[in-house]
Amino acid sequence: MKPVFNRILFGGDYNPNQWPQDIWQEDMQMFKKANINSATINVFSWAQIQPSEHVYDFSELDQIVEMLSKEDKDIVLATATGALPAWMFKKYPEVGRTDYQGRHHKFGQRHNACPNSLVYQKYAAAIAGKLAERYGDNPHVTCWHINNEYQGDCYCEQCEKAFRVWLKDKYQTIDALNKAWNMSFWGHTVYEWDEIVLPNALSEGISHDKTAFAGISIDYRRFSSDSLLENFKMERDAIRRFDPTTPVTTNLMGTFKGLDYFKWAKEMDIVSWDNYPAYNTPWSLVSMTHDLMRGLKQQPFMLMEQTPSQQNWQPYNSLKKPGQMRAQSYQTIAHGADTIQFFQLRRSIGACEKFHGAVIEHVGHEETRVFRETADLGKELTQLWEIMGTGNHGKTAIIFDWDNYWALEYTSGPTIDLTYVDQIHQYYRYFYDQNIPVDMVSVTADLTDYDLVIAPVLYMVKEGVAEQLTDFVETGGTLVTTYMSGIVDQSDNVHLGGYPGPLRQLAGIWVEEIDALAPEQTNQVQINERLKGSSRLVSDLIHLEGAEALAVYTSNFYAGMPAVTKHTYGKGTVFYFGTQLDQDAFDLLMTAVKETAAIEPIIAAQTAIEITRRQSESHDYYFLINFEAEAQPLPAYFVGKTDLLSGAILEKNQTLSQYTTYIIKEERHK
Amino acid sequence: MKPVFNRILFGGDYNPNQWPQDIWQEDMQMFKKANINSATINVFSWAQIQPSEHVYDFSELDQIVEMLSKEDKDIVLATATGALPAWMFKKYPEVGRTDYQGRHHKFGQRHNACPNSLVYQKYAAAIAGKLAERYGDNPHVTCWHINNEYQGDCYCEQCEKAFRVWLKDKYQTIDALNKAWNMSFWGHTVYEWDEIVLPNALSEGISHDKTAFAGISIDYRRFSSDSLLENFKMERDAIRRFDPTTPVTTNLMGTFKGLDYFKWAKEMDIVSWDNYPAYNTPWSLVSMTHDLMRGLKQQPFMLMEQTPSQQNWQPYNSLKKPGQMRAQSYQTIAHGADTIQFFQLRRSIGACEKFHGAVIEHVGHEETRVFRETADLGKELTQLWEIMGTGNHGKTAIIFDWDNYWALEYTSGPTIDLTYVDQIHQYYRYFYDQNIPVDMVSVTADLTDYDLVIAPVLYMVKEGVAEQLTDFVETGGTLVTTYMSGIVDQSDNVHLGGYPGPLRQLAGIWVEEIDALAPEQTNQVQINERLKGSSRLVSDLIHLEGAEALAVYTSNFYAGMPAVTKHTYGKGTVFYFGTQLDQDAFDLLMTAVKETAAIEPIIAAQTAIEITRRQSESHDYYFLINFEAEAQPLPAYFVGKTDLLSGAILEKNQTLSQYTTYIIKEERHK
Amino acid sequence: MKPVFNRILFGGDYNPNQWPQDIWQEDMQMFKKANINSATINVFSWAQIQPSEHVYDFSELDQIVEMLSKEDKDIVLATATGALPAWMFKKYPEVGRTDYQGRHHKFGQRHNACPNSLVYQKYAAAIAGKLAERYGDNPHVTCWHINNEYQGDCYCEQCEKAFRVWLKDKYQTIDALNKAWNMSFWGHTVYEWDEIVLPNALSEGISHDKTAFAGISIDYRRFSSDSLLENFKMERDAIRRFDPTTPVTTNLMGTFKGLDYFKWAKEMDIVSWDNYPAYNTPWSLVSMTHDLMRGLKQQPFMLMEQTPSQQNWQPYNSLKKPGQMRAQSYQTIAHGADTIQFFQLRRSIGACEKFHGAVIEHVGHEETRVFRETADLGKELTQLWEIMGTGNHGKTAIIFDWDNYWALEYTSGPTIDLTYVDQIHQYYRYFYDQNIPVDMVSVTADLTDYDLVIAPVLYMVKEGVAEQLTDFVETGGTLVTTYMSGIVDQSDNVHLGGYPGPLRQLAGIWVEEIDALAPEQTNQVQINERLKGSSRLVSDLIHLEGAEALAVYTSNFYAGMPAVTKHTYGKGTVFYFGTQLDQDAFDLLMTAVKETAAIEPIIAAQTAIEITRRQSESHDYYFLINFEAEAQPLPAYFVGKTDLLSGAILEKNQTLSQYTTYIIKEERHK
Repeated sequence: MKPVFNRILFGGDYNPNQWPQDIWQEDMQMFKKANINSATINVFSWAQIQPSEHVYDFSELDQIVEMLSKEDKDIVLATATGALPAWMFKKYPEVGRTDYQGRHHKFGQRHNACPNSLVYQKYAAAIAGKLAERYGDNPHVTCWHINNEYQGDCYCEQCEKAFRVWLKDKYQTIDALNKAWNMSFWGHTVYEWDEIVLPNALSEGISHDKTAFAGISIDYRRFSSDSLLENFKMERDAIRRFDPTTPVTTNLMGTFKGLDYFKWAKEMDIVSWDNYPAYNTPWSLVSMTHDLMRGLKQQPFMLMEQTPSQQNWQPYNSLKKPGQMRAQSYQTIAHGADTIQFFQLRRSIGACEKFHGAVIEHVGHEETRVFRETADLGKELTQLWEIMGTGNHGKTAIIFDWDNYWALEYTSGPTIDLTYVDQIHQYYRYFYDQNIPVDMVSVTADLTDYDLVIAPVLYMVKEGVAEQLTDFVETGGTLVTTYMSGIVDQSDNVHLGGYPGPLRQLAGIWVEEIDALAPEQTNQVQINERLKGSSRLVSDLIHLEGAEALAVYTSNFYAGMPAVTKHTYGKGTVFYFGTQLDQDAFDLLMTAVKETAAIEPIIAAQTAIEITRRQSESHDYYFLINFEAEAQPLPAYFVGKTDLLSGAILEKNQTLSQYTTYIIKEERHK
Repeated sequence: MKPVFNRILFGGDYNPNQWPQDIWQEDMQMFKKANINSATINVFSWAQIQPSEHVYDFSELDQIVEMLSKEDKDIVLATATGALPAWMFKKYPEVGRTDYQGRHHKFGQRHNACPNSLVYQKYAAAIAGKLAERYGDNPHVTCWHINNEYQGDCYCEQCEKAFRVWLKDKYQTIDALNKAWNMSFWGHTVYEWDEIVLPNALSEGISHDKTAFAGISIDYRRFSSDSLLENFKMERDAIRRFDPTTPVTTNLMGTFKGLDYFKWAKEMDIVSWDNYPAYNTPWSLVSMTHDLMRGLKQQPFMLMEQTPSQQNWQPYNSLKKPGQMRAQSYQTIAHGADTIQFFQLRRSIGACEKFHGAVIEHVGHEETRVFRETADLGKELTQLWEIMGTGNHGKTAIIFDWDNYWALEYTSGPTIDLTYVDQIHQYYRYFYDQNIPVDMVSVTADLTDYDLVIAPVLYMVKEGVAEQLTDFVETGGTLVTTYMSGIVDQSDNVHLGGYPGPLRQLAGIWVEEIDALAPEQTNQVQINERLKGSSRLVSDLIHLEGAEALAVYTSNFYAGMPAVTKHTYGKGTVFYFGTQLDQDAFDLLMTAVKETAAIEPIIAAQTAIEITRRQSESHDYYFLINFEAEAQPLPAYFVGKTDLLSGAILEKNQTLSQYTTYIIKEERHK
Repeated sequence: MKPVFNRILFGGDYNPNQWPQDIWQEDMQMFKKANINSATINVFSWAQIQPSEHVYDFSELDQIVEMLSKEDKDIVLATATGALPAWMFKKYPEVGRTDYQGRHHKFGQRHNACPNSLVYQKYAAAIAGKLAERYGDNPHVTCWHINNEYQGDCYCEQCEKAFRVWLKDKYQTIDALNKAWNMSFWGHTVYEWDEIVLPNALSEGISHDKTAFAGISIDYRRFSSDSLLENFKMERDAIRRFDPTTPVTTNLMGTFKGLDYFKWAKEMDIVSWDNYPAYNTPWSLVSMTHDLMRGLKQQPFMLMEQTPSQQNWQPYNSLKKPGQMRAQSYQTIAHGADTIQFFQLRRSIGACEKFHGAVIEHVGHEETRVFRETADLGKELTQLWEIMGTGNHGKTAIIFDWDNYWALEYTSGPTIDLTYVDQIHQYYRYFYDQNIPVDMVSVTADLTDYDLVIAPVLYMVKEGVAEQLTDFVETGGTLVTTYMSGIVDQSDNVHLGGYPGPLRQLAGIWVEEIDALAPEQTNQVQINERLKGSSRLVSDLIHLEGAEALAVYTSNFYAGMPAVTKHTYGKGTVFYFGTQLDQDAFDLLMTAVKETAAIEPIIAAQTAIEITRRQSESHDYYFLINFEAEAQPLPAYFVGKTDLLSGAILEKNQTLSQYTTYIIKEERHK
């Protein structure tokens, strides 16, 4: 596709308003040395721009925009609504949030606005409109950045009323709502809309993540996501009144649970996100999250934030090692990013993020390792414009679904150890290790281009989903699904008639019972003559109804029953994993899946190097990154080819030390 | 005694009101196949029966009662007051509770009524009365089930006022109250009743289980138990106005801390309870809890709830293995149950208990393991009518006392690791392993029929208790008591003059000091020439005052001092355990206790099989259950005898695999 | 110096008002037997003395004072304001506190007054004045004890208003405040003083110990400490109106985080404190805390509270072993105490401290180990009057600073494992093991008398501090500082220009980056050819700017960079520890430090015995205490000398078993 920007944005969050002006010129000089071509500004300036209810003051922002424009920077202009001004809290306390405990908050922190406060809405829309009116026709304003990392819930009375309206829209009648939430259970039947109260610690909430009535709590999650999305749309529309073309985004947070990002992405011109792995996050999980962010629109995305080296808010904020930031940046690009932006360009002098790394550290000069690595990367990126807009295409899709995320983790039973992202990642990890490209897709995605679809813990099967999966399999697709799938409908009411409900016929099995294994318990499983495995977490007790067993339990009272099954259905095949296998056993069976679907890795050879591919209409771009501590041999496929970054020709017997990255460009033979 | 019911009720919670009527006929057919003869209905139907303040609608309940009557089911009719209707919360917010944190709750969950709300009381009594008026003369209504699992505290203003009234009743004068609570400590003296506030997180509470002033907090526990008991009595009395005879119960929860069940049992016609062991609960603890529930009235009880297989609200909800539910049901009967009832007959479609097992699973048909096991058990039980009403009689009593439970766990010092139920269970476990029948009795129970009384951690010795124990020993009884006994009076004020206070003379010892051992610390103990043991938790520093030492410390600065003592007093004997011994040492000394009291096991031979006995006037019924994973040989005593369940004659060399259960009936030779 | 008291006060908290009068005479007799010469009274009697708003009743207190005076006891007279009367809560609910969660508390517990409540202030000052008026000229009233263990925060509206006044005093202008707190970060700029809200869970607080804006939270800590200090001063001044001379104190709590005790000590005539180590507290930490308490005024202090044996409020309340209380008491004296007082003289009968040890136990007579040990100690102490007023003098100072305590622990990054007291104790422990006397000093202390100053984690370098340290080094002093030093100014804003900011030139290094190590991670370090060490927690990446490397990293990407450095500056030397070394490596380098500063231990020989020294103008008093479980040989230096306590002459080959204590008096050769 045509890239959204004219160059790879390389820059990041920049807050000159937090500094005296004599620093600004130093900044400009250092940005030049660092090959920085972009700055994200105005993220937290509401209190400065609007010092009181009826006064706006853009004088300083004018200067900043002018300075950056003169320096030919691409400006990512934020709307500053991510934190409320203190005066607004004082004057209109209702702009603040009421938390899960029922406590109304006073001024402080950020992401602190009640999304349903009319006062907040009025002034957030106003400021977005004023900014667009003032700066929308500046050609250096390249992107609008609305708010910041939207997140958080509010349980105030305004939200309670808005929730009732939202419910009335959805259910139309109180009877429909009672049915959807199964309110006759525990005699919760409501007769009037205003008997409904928000599900927090004072009502249905058991803990922030557990609830007595999943129906209302899942709907609240949807409502909460929608409420913030309405805030986003309101600002976007205010901008569009003055600026019809500049792309609009907000920075997302990967697998953040609070918002249904697939729904959000539809309203965004381009996805952007903030990548903050911990010191011990598996690289496969980072990779999966990039793929998810790309998958939201199946388009290239912006890396809105990463740290040049250190974070501050994690328990242990290790430094990025030499080369690590570069490798991580290329991993990001490899998976679909068209920008590399940092939080932050200059380290703040005070408040809670002062230990967060920056391109310009507290020392204030460029003679630092971090600055040098940044500058080097910036220089390299100027050569990579051709990668912008290129796509990542796989034949394998993994379904990620926020409704399932919420519903699965709200369940009471069978085990507290089932967590959604971990379950999805288990499957992703296999493909990552094999260098098989994966698309992360929504549960309603068009599956026609895929050969293999993985739907782990597809607990909630909403209307139309089973039909679509059935079509996919009937026409030759291979589907993998697992324990805790097909259980409930959109309201968290069980699909009666035997698990996995609407997937039962497709999978050719009936799951009679679901055993839970405590952490100290395992089951034994026989895969084939050669391989015994073990399993944990849950164990489905499966009856074959057309499927065949690929693995059987050899322990527990259900020894002899199938643990993993395979079913031919139409022209396709369905694999069902009834338990969580140890990795060797799991990989063996996933290889059978892969072969059934005839899925190919990017290159045939086994390697511990991460290999990713972006594709233009004519060319393939291979990204080779070694994340292993040990040096890895160059796969034979790339011997003799030229690294786009260094210009070097890759040699036989060459090894890649940790964080070494090569990009190889190859014309595609169609 | 004459059984309360005409047959062993076999059934459980049934909520047809949560289902469309076409399911009802399926239910009736399946109940028949499952040999179900009883259903507990209307547990959570308040909102349906009383859809608004002035409207009652019994039409659906009429249909349900009629249907079940036609099917000749015994109906356990609940009063539906376990969860408030939403409209009542909206109209009268004061019906809800204020929690320990001081937060007033909104509509949600269950067990959510302020017990001292006049509105709640008015409508709860009204509905109970109306139900009795309408259904009380239906012969199929076999039992009234008031509310559900009474539990929970309220800290609202209504309760605060009620608490003051309760206190005035108890103490008469403010001086008496100040003295009882030792209010001069920290200058807490109150001069007016309305200076007293409820002890929660905003006042005396340190955490839910710790307090700055145990006096007020223990009284609050008593008040809270009494407040809910008043609710129970109020409904019971409303029923009695229309139905003078049908037995009234409510379902208790074993060793649940919140309510003084001995006090409650006095107001109940029959005890019923809900048995939900976790996957790793020791069977001896389950057994003890049954004995406690039987002990509340020293009469047979109802098993109101158990799951046919799986639970949902525990961390890890394992399946019951084949035969386990049957064995567990017979264990229940063996210890005194006259009914076997399940939660639930049909699995709910939604809300938080949808993963709780049921006789009819989500699949909806009878071809399930769980259904088959249920049906088989139902069939067997029809043959066991003769066991109903028979008693369990032991010569050993263990004292369980809710005042002690509360007081001991409120103490600040000497160690946080002292927990009441664990302490009681340690003693019970010995007798369980020996197949010695035990009665769990209240602290005011008549002890004349017992040879051995165990009073572990009898921390609070209320008025009359020491006298009664002294009588018991003087007339030849054997008493065991332990560290942390005899410390305080009913107000948690210390019995001055040396531990164990009023038990000092009886035990023939003076405990000068009480050492606390951290988890990593142990003491060494010498039992006799042969056996050295170790001890932990606490170590009393004991001086003999007439007693002899059975074990002495051999480590720490109190090496040489007694750890366990024996005292001849009157015609009896008192054993005192001054520390928590390892199991071998403990068992050795308990055997000395047993021999002193001449306590006999049910059969002489050692066996890992649980053997329990119920007795009619003429016959003994032996229950043999193997809970061990390994098969166990049949004790010789039972060779050649007939299993009442299978009719088979038990053979020599026969072994009982896990969960195998036999019942042997034998005429008693008086 | 001249001692504050005429004899070593030996006694403790005594609450006859909690007992019937017939007990009082028993008390008097037993105190005599226990050689008790002092009693602390009236600590929690407010409700008794002032039973209602306009009524005071001193009749009982008169009796108590008279009785104690007759017995010639030194009376430590408390003002009783540590817990509010219930009637005051009822009449003026605003006297109570609002907690960190924003919940306003009702009557209960203690230390429960809002420090900024005018009602509280009025009546607290009134009672202090009345007590002084009544008892101030009684010669037996030897000391005033204001309130009790001042502690805790309040977040009510009164405090919020007082906070704004405090801030206006400090910052004068709102611009200065915005700058100090770096309020442009996250757009927190305030325009009016009343936009400022207290930093709790409803505003800037992340958890009780973490905050989004350290600036406001540190100022709140200062304000909170000052608010309570104002309460103290208000009572003191009320006393001074009637009693101009009797020393005034309040009991402190060692390294308690909440109050800036150096600031408090300036207002106190003598420091007193409560020493409650846990069963596993290192003796070096106890020792350090004594030195800190002495350091507050660099004068002898009172041990206001210790337990004769057992505590009650710790998780595991072990008994003090025979001799342990004596040894611990002498350790206290050795480090500067002129009194030994117990909580408590008689064990309370009820409420939460009834399991706290006492001289008179619940048994009520003197035939207890604890009583005997107390009496023996009391007798010994009568011989030690000459030690009173003597000093402890060291050439080594360790800086302890509450601002640093608060600021360091509020930081977000680089690791959550940095805790202030542990860091200080690491350095103290080295000197303790070497029997080198240490003074714990404030960050503004006069350093001219010291040869060695240790400033661990001197994170916040306030105005003037760097200058003073520079003077100290320039004139020949040796300074040790560490990672996380020199980072911020008084407002928690970073000293820009490279870490360690104002200490950079002094240390001759630049710290480019600060790595954080997770608990499972270590770095390798080379000290010299012989010794390899390891390090953890944090690792500074150091560039030498004049300093030399004493240790270098040999692992991680910064292998080869310095880990510990030494810099000659002026006539002095600066050591910088850039990482937390294992103990062997640490001790080796600290020995180099010690030798550089020519610091001498009290005696040359290595010994595991704690040796401390107090000095009069003419004599040295050596305290030898063996805290090790194993007996330790007497150091040769003391052979032939006389133990002041027993009169015995110490012999060659003599060993000291655990808790053995000797005091040796020696004339000093000047």
